[in-house]
Amino acid sequence: MNCVFCDIAAGRRQAAIVYEDEQVVAFHDINPQAPVHVLVIPREHIPGPLAIAAPHEALAGHMLVVAGQVAQDLGIATDGYRLVLNQGTLGGQSVFHLHLHLLGGRRMRWPPG
Amino acid sequence: MNCVFCDIAAGRRQAAIVYEDEQVVAFHDINPQAPVHVLVIPREHIPGPLAIAAPHEALAGHMLVVAGQVAQDLGIATDGYRLVLNQGTLGGQSVFHLHLHLLGGRRMRWPPG
Repeated sequence: MNCVFCDIAAGRRQAAIVYEDEQVVAFHDINPQAPVHVLVIPREHIPGPLAIAAPHEALAGHMLVVAGQVAQDLGIATDGYRLVLNQGTLGGQSVFHLHLHLLGGRRMRWPPG
Repeated sequence: MNCVFCDIAAGRRQAAIVYEDEQVVAFHDINPQAPVHVLVIPREHIPGPLAIAAPHEALAGHMLVVAGQVAQDLGIATDGYRLVLNQGTLGGQSVFHLHLHLLGGRRMRWPPG
């Protein structure tokens, strides 16, 4: 199976990594929608938000904790930021490996797309 | 401390609840931004995404699992949906009790606000 985010997690494909540990990798989005736009992905291939099942609860929660740590590291935590997960066609999902968008450095509008 | 989402979780304030268990409550947003717009909150008062720390990992992940279950229950899972968490001023956070937005039933645009 060909998955660009599995390749990044495995180091087979370059990315501007800002954080990594045994469970997740965080890197700058190549098509940023805000001054700071980072993706947090699990190393495990989970196809998307809908595939997060009970055995993944701690891992999925860890992605959220890491997003906060990255926000602090990149200096956007105090002013605020938005976290986004897209599922399927209407959600705008483009890569079918779970990824959490962290967007900050500008005022995010409402509705969220 | 006065918190509207603590009040909903405790049953002291009405909400159009679609799911609840020991850890979380899900209910329709009173100002919907999509045909389906549900909020998933933890019963525990966590101020926002940045306050999700390691001890909350399973709880935060459970919120994501529940969002997927609610999406299926409300018939928006197959077509897709978006999940959003807002932190602080630039993120557009308006209630300072952690809440996960589940939006679906229409095509979500990019950027996400």
